[in-house]
Amino acid sequence: MSTIENRLARLGLILPTAAAPVAAYVPVVEMGGFAHVSGQLPLIEGRLVTGRLGQDLALEQGVEAARACALMILAQLRLALGSLDRVERIVKLGGFVNSAEGFVDQPKVINGASELMLAVFDDAGRHARSAVGVPTLPLGAAVEVDAIVAVRPRV
Amino acid sequence: MSTIENRLARLGLILPTAAAPVAAYVPVVEMGGFAHVSGQLPLIEGRLVTGRLGQDLALEQGVEAARACALMILAQLRLALGSLDRVERIVKLGGFVNSAEGFVDQPKVINGASELMLAVFDDAGRHARSAVGVPTLPLGAAVEVDAIVAVRPRV
Amino acid sequence: MSTIENRLARLGLILPTAAAPVAAYVPVVEMGGFAHVSGQLPLIEGRLVTGRLGQDLALEQGVEAARACALMILAQLRLALGSLDRVERIVKLGGFVNSAEGFVDQPKVINGASELMLAVFDDAGRHARSAVGVPTLPLGAAVEVDAIVAVRPRV
Repeated sequence: MSTIENRLARLGLILPTAAAPVAAYVPVVEMGGFAHVSGQLPLIEGRLVTGRLGQDLALEQGVEAARACALMILAQLRLALGSLDRVERIVKLGGFVNSAEGFVDQPKVINGASELMLAVFDDAGRHARSAVGVPTLPLGAAVEVDAIVAVRPRV
Repeated sequence: MSTIENRLARLGLILPTAAAPVAAYVPVVEMGGFAHVSGQLPLIEGRLVTGRLGQDLALEQGVEAARACALMILAQLRLALGSLDRVERIVKLGGFVNSAEGFVDQPKVINGASELMLAVFDDAGRHARSAVGVPTLPLGAAVEVDAIVAVRPRV
Repeated sequence: MSTIENRLARLGLILPTAAAPVAAYVPVVEMGGFAHVSGQLPLIEGRLVTGRLGQDLALEQGVEAARACALMILAQLRLALGSLDRVERIVKLGGFVNSAEGFVDQPKVINGASELMLAVFDDAGRHARSAVGVPTLPLGAAVEVDAIVAVRPRV
């Protein structure tokens, strides 16, 4: 079993089935040493987490949603790259939080994704990030996270 | 005539004049094998498509606006790269949709851009993507789309 | 003194102390010839500029906030790269403006960041850009700007 699959098992993490894109695009494009991962929505036990932080959802629900986005990013990478051991570095996460106007804890929400990357990849999971509030997301999702990942060549 | 120009002609597509930036930046930067394209606004017959999806504009108008953004991305790339035949892969589109709070069909809107890329570039047009809702865009535009494109060296 | 430090001195620019990330990520990741800089918030004399354009803040205050984000991007790059002389090109800025619904001058706001890059780096500061409105940002910030920068190898 690969190093990262071992790590996932030790952490008790089971990746979801890689979700099909909700439109005319692909989940991952690998070019020039980087994999660009499409914005992933939060599925928990197959159900989309919907609603707005600061209005419909508590902070902890947002954190869980962001973590679910990160698990889906890993699922998409595993499928596209063949193995998560090809991940050289999580370079950048872009986090969009469905937010009521007064909600300003987007960083705490997106930490749900960031901390998962650190737990799975250690130093290779230390990434740059942006986190912003938006008034609405596809299908009413609570969070959307995309990613840029540095990848090793196929062996 | 180049391959992609042939394709544009067969599809009946005429690229707009590459719009000047609306501020202190440039439309395209090519570095390290990638071209980063600035966020493009939707011009149809020289007029900016303004308004908010789910409030002022019907879905189909949003789709047309996103398609216009994609045509402008191609116009900017042609001007900056010298030829669209240098496009190796459309890597990533970032779609921002001017959205009323209850509007959740950002993926359908941005498909207007995505499907154009597929029609023009076939497999090289298959890209990663994010699509989010925003409450307002520059000059009141309905949609803004930026892009990361892998490019071949100049011959 | 390095070229860019000289330039900063001639322009009378003093970079702020590089701010610690407000959550579980790092300010800069350098991989494959590019540095990705996390979204930076506007600190002026150590105080965060908060509020919404078109409601709480005048345009000029937004411009100053965007400029402060750009200065923080430079502070983060200097710390991470060792020297700003390693900056080969400012490739892309991503600007998010805390905006009331009717505010459509995001490009003028983000010019505060763009014009600083041009002043500091001349042609190497000419970048691609996106600028969008958002309803809320981390900690109530007025502006957030992230960056992709092409970097020279360490000597």
